[in-house]
Amino acid sequence: MSARGAVFIATSLDGFIAREDGRIDWLLQANEAVPPGEDCGYAAFMATVDAIVMGRATFEQVLAFADWPYGTTPLMVWSRRLQALPAGLPPTVSLHAGSATELAAHAAQHGHGRLYVDGGRTIQAFLAAHLIDEPTITVIPILLGRGRPLFGGMGPDVHLTHLSTQAWPFGFVQNRYAVAAPA
Amino acid sequence: MSARGAVFIATSLDGFIAREDGRIDWLLQANEAVPPGEDCGYAAFMATVDAIVMGRATFEQVLAFADWPYGTTPLMVWSRRLQALPAGLPPTVSLHAGSATELAAHAAQHGHGRLYVDGGRTIQAFLAAHLIDEPTITVIPILLGRGRPLFGGMGPDVHLTHLSTQAWPFGFVQNRYAVAAPA
Repeated sequence: MSARGAVFIATSLDGFIAREDGRIDWLLQANEAVPPGEDCGYAAFMATVDAIVMGRATFEQVLAFADWPYGTTPLMVWSRRLQALPAGLPPTVSLHAGSATELAAHAAQHGHGRLYVDGGRTIQAFLAAHLIDEPTITVIPILLGRGRPLFGGMGPDVHLTHLSTQAWPFGFVQNRYAVAAPA
Repeated sequence: MSARGAVFIATSLDGFIAREDGRIDWLLQANEAVPPGEDCGYAAFMATVDAIVMGRATFEQVLAFADWPYGTTPLMVWSRRLQALPAGLPPTVSLHAGSATELAAHAAQHGHGRLYVDGGRTIQAFLAAHLIDEPTITVIPILLGRGRPLFGGMGPDVHLTHLSTQAWPFGFVQNRYAVAAPA
């Protein structure tokens, strides 16, 4: 048994999730145009997942937040490099090495059937392991020219089924897809 | 006076307009799911442009078509490498070197105020020269993993205004943007 992954992420129109140095200033700036109370479906998405998986780079961004953003939802930090978690974290945070497949199996054993897979490399690894069912991608109306791509370097074509699209007056366009099973 | 450029192009969800070797088999295959008579706004778009600009690579793809696809609309082939056009082309085809800015000025002098700018490198060059007003991008529900990107290597951020989005039952999502003037 294996958990399955969902993705909920924002990219620039040219497909980057962060600048080359990891900064997301452009995303924070774009978010300033979003009216208070509008979360572009984030809370509804979070209500569907059992746990979160992210790599070290994304985790370090989360650590810089003033408040813990994930409530009681378990957060699995996936890193071969981290030896231990920093002190003072909520007890819902755990550290994992191993492959994406092993991580998904471990999650399922602990009752986490649906994972929120976050961060570029983690998403790419889970996609390559055919563990992503549903990517939801919110496109921000900016071209960065260069940066850290959401997708990249995968193997053969991945066919998707378009599920829905929503556009907001502040220019964000959100597309939800299902990943077709590999042929 | 300068002509202004519009873009009307399809990309994979990961932002590629062709495979690394230039093949668009994935796009032709996706088009097979499009009902007869549905052109995703292409004819309406073509009716708004005065001339077409494309580079050598895209032009060579056009030459491989069985029928000339552009009717009487002038086609400006933009290439520093091509010395002459092949024989037997319609008289609407012309060859141009020079910069994007020079080409846009030349077009305007000939009464072509709005250009359909096609092909990855040509689009990137016109974007970098601030000559693109309106990109319309149709996203095909496939991840190619690698290929020729629509965007890339531009300088500073390009801010866009989202104009409209249309999604079709066969999974294509078309987004129309306006390019904001450089700050």
